[in-house]
Amino acid sequence: MADPRFFMVAGPFSLKALAERTGAKIAAGSDPERWLRDVAPLETAEPDEVAFLDNRKYLPAFEATRAGAVFVHPSLAPRAPKGTAVLVTEHPYRAYAQAAQAFYPERRIAPGIHPSAVVDPSARIGEEVTVGPNAVIEAEAEIGRRSQVGPGAVIGRGSVLGEDVRIGACVSLSHAIIGSRVTLYPGVRIGQDGFGFAPTPTGVVKVPQLGRVIIEDDVEIGANTTIDRGAGPDTMIGAGTMIDNLVQIGHNVQIGRGCILVSQVGISGSTKLGDHVMIGGQGGLIGHLVIGSGARIAAQSGVMRDVPAGATVSGAPAVPLKEHFRQIAVLQRLAKGKSE
Amino acid sequence: MADPRFFMVAGPFSLKALAERTGAKIAAGSDPERWLRDVAPLETAEPDEVAFLDNRKYLPAFEATRAGAVFVHPSLAPRAPKGTAVLVTEHPYRAYAQAAQAFYPERRIAPGIHPSAVVDPSARIGEEVTVGPNAVIEAEAEIGRRSQVGPGAVIGRGSVLGEDVRIGACVSLSHAIIGSRVTLYPGVRIGQDGFGFAPTPTGVVKVPQLGRVIIEDDVEIGANTTIDRGAGPDTMIGAGTMIDNLVQIGHNVQIGRGCILVSQVGISGSTKLGDHVMIGGQGGLIGHLVIGSGARIAAQSGVMRDVPAGATVSGAPAVPLKEHFRQIAVLQRLAKGKSE
Amino acid sequence: MADPRFFMVAGPFSLKALAERTGAKIAAGSDPERWLRDVAPLETAEPDEVAFLDNRKYLPAFEATRAGAVFVHPSLAPRAPKGTAVLVTEHPYRAYAQAAQAFYPERRIAPGIHPSAVVDPSARIGEEVTVGPNAVIEAEAEIGRRSQVGPGAVIGRGSVLGEDVRIGACVSLSHAIIGSRVTLYPGVRIGQDGFGFAPTPTGVVKVPQLGRVIIEDDVEIGANTTIDRGAGPDTMIGAGTMIDNLVQIGHNVQIGRGCILVSQVGISGSTKLGDHVMIGGQGGLIGHLVIGSGARIAAQSGVMRDVPAGATVSGAPAVPLKEHFRQIAVLQRLAKGKSE
Repeated sequence: MADPRFFMVAGPFSLKALAERTGAKIAAGSDPERWLRDVAPLETAEPDEVAFLDNRKYLPAFEATRAGAVFVHPSLAPRAPKGTAVLVTEHPYRAYAQAAQAFYPERRIAPGIHPSAVVDPSARIGEEVTVGPNAVIEAEAEIGRRSQVGPGAVIGRGSVLGEDVRIGACVSLSHAIIGSRVTLYPGVRIGQDGFGFAPTPTGVVKVPQLGRVIIEDDVEIGANTTIDRGAGPDTMIGAGTMIDNLVQIGHNVQIGRGCILVSQVGISGSTKLGDHVMIGGQGGLIGHLVIGSGARIAAQSGVMRDVPAGATVSGAPAVPLKEHFRQIAVLQRLAKGKSE
Repeated sequence: MADPRFFMVAGPFSLKALAERTGAKIAAGSDPERWLRDVAPLETAEPDEVAFLDNRKYLPAFEATRAGAVFVHPSLAPRAPKGTAVLVTEHPYRAYAQAAQAFYPERRIAPGIHPSAVVDPSARIGEEVTVGPNAVIEAEAEIGRRSQVGPGAVIGRGSVLGEDVRIGACVSLSHAIIGSRVTLYPGVRIGQDGFGFAPTPTGVVKVPQLGRVIIEDDVEIGANTTIDRGAGPDTMIGAGTMIDNLVQIGHNVQIGRGCILVSQVGISGSTKLGDHVMIGGQGGLIGHLVIGSGARIAAQSGVMRDVPAGATVSGAPAVPLKEHFRQIAVLQRLAKGKSE
Repeated sequence: MADPRFFMVAGPFSLKALAERTGAKIAAGSDPERWLRDVAPLETAEPDEVAFLDNRKYLPAFEATRAGAVFVHPSLAPRAPKGTAVLVTEHPYRAYAQAAQAFYPERRIAPGIHPSAVVDPSARIGEEVTVGPNAVIEAEAEIGRRSQVGPGAVIGRGSVLGEDVRIGACVSLSHAIIGSRVTLYPGVRIGQDGFGFAPTPTGVVKVPQLGRVIIEDDVEIGANTTIDRGAGPDTMIGAGTMIDNLVQIGHNVQIGRGCILVSQVGISGSTKLGDHVMIGGQGGLIGHLVIGSGARIAAQSGVMRDVPAGATVSGAPAVPLKEHFRQIAVLQRLAKGKSE
């Protein structure tokens, strides 16, 4: 069970209720009225807990489980041990995620503005908004309904947050227009000046950064990630995109819908990503590139050229994945030869 | 036009005023008394807006622009369309930057110490200083005239800030002596202990870090960048150096004047950079190196040796750029051969 | 001498007192009652200061030093100049570190809760705890004796801190159980949700992250480093581990005792490190790996496979160090050949 100091478990739920919530089907012989009290891994689940099987490698654990119920693919359902109810689904991990959301709903923080918060009188604060201790909301900012602003967070002048937005502790944002159901984890920095200047013989002249950061609905942005505002055009993050911790997004970058950026990725100014692009950890992209929808960029890649839609690239400089594998193989072979 | 929720436009300015401010010359036939109200890109500029042409690739846009005026190199000035005034300059982008600064001056925040800020009575606060909500200024700190300390920022005991310094939201600094016209973007961490310890058979012994961080005039340091204080000598950042987001600067590092460090660069302890060194994104330097003035280090390079002044290196381990290109070419050729 | 605005020097200490505190032996002919007032490098040390010699390369500086005393290995002790007392030890750098700790003890901040801090009435605060200005301590949190919570830091609901913990400015932590003598430098983010979601055709479903972050005794975590909480199991950091700035630790990662992680390292979810593992700067590890005790991973490595105990790996993809050296050599040789 999750540590009750940090998590409150809801429920219990009947097998039937879990099936409804996740779209899974109750296998013949499983009792729809059976009660489940928690989620747990296959190995440790008790008869009142629900687990999932997502990978054939864990079949032995499945066959030996004491779990009260298991989400499982139709092809593996017959392998369930006696006494374990079966919830059949094409997507067992997703169903588990949905069940876990039912057991562990987001903790509701009582709405209200903490007396230590500093909220400018011209800010517009929606209904049921929570503003934590020592948070700061500057002039003309707008906070949509049910949004939460964490302790010590700073919402800059004129910024707009949609509904059900969650702003973590110590976040700062400015020059930003943010949709609904967006989560910014602690320490995120949004909207500061991009790295823009004109070189001169005696130093550099700073170029005013006159754009914004636009974040669409259902985006998550990881801890201590930085997103600079546009230089003239806006920096844009498309709906449903997931960004991990310590990622850098330069000015004027445009990211499509449903992209996944793993931690420590860096994207230089004015590069454009289509939809559903994936970038592995520590990948780097130079500026002014166009990355097509569905492209996949491996961890630590150094992308110096446009990537077509659907392509998978790897290496530094990044090349198609198969070519990178061949480069690695040939180099390993030559290195072995040399040592002989 | 820039979003008025975030930017206030100054002006209008006459062509003559813009020419004076930027050092550009008004081409024959352009009316010095023409009024301009804003900056804009060539493609969208209206007859009362000023644009720039910095790259021959945008010549068609220049020839078709409706802009009221354009900053342009002398060699391309004759290509201007009728009706567009021409501001001739060897450095169109720099001139644009200066014009944009005129239209969009830094927003003046009313000076004063917000009542929620915590300022130690022994701190010395200069005239016209702004201290934002929930900022903290510890004992004996000194803040120079017209400097701004953002919301939630923490200025550690004894630290010294020059004049016109801008400290972003949620910055923390300690053990630091900072010049004038320095900007620290949100979340910057300056002056914490370096990563210094002596290994022992039973663990490590922490080595007290007894130096400081010295930052000269006109430096910018990007969001969530970290700069450790010296172990005994100081960590130093030379005048006019520009550091991007999420950069790591280890203890005792010395950086010269006018250097440019792109985001996610890491510089290990005691490495020294001359003046005007450039390091691309995600570049890494081991400790105790000497990098000569004017050296250029490509993105994602792994620098393991000293780099002579003026050299350009690339790759991991970094080698002269041409050699790196040859390595890439030979490896790509071999990989292709292997697949045949 | 260290800048008195930032450091207060203790002492003076007699040679005998320093010998006792560091385990060094006083060489014959050195006066145990000689007084030392500070630590300093060999080159600049005065007759009332103590230095160390740790590397034969500095023998000339040793032979010419004016230092009052020097920590030195027995084999080099005879090279000391006249007038310099000699403290003989197998571990001169460690002894120096211990002496420096004596001269520069951690500054004692007066215990107490600053009136601007927001401490929930249900939090349990130990004796002699310091809570800085504008810090926030949420419900049910526990802070052990003599611990210090820096300005603007946020201690999340239910989190537990042991004794003598130091939390830097602007840190945020949640879902965390932390041992004693742990230091979190400014801007550290601990306990936020891991990057966990189940893909679906219409986007992703967030998987509730139900674990915690467990940090054992004597751990240090560098500025702006991020450590996500476990998804179900906990994220764990073993005793005595040292983590540098801007490091990313994913959910469910387990790190053993006495590991050293240099800045900008990234470790993906569920990877396990044994004890005394070292990872150089910007090294990256994919998820679900097992890294044996004593393994060493070079800077910028990309680790895609398990690493056996005691092995040293390098490169991307990482291979045994010698093999990586051969790869580099063969590639350099081929590139040279190509240019001829």
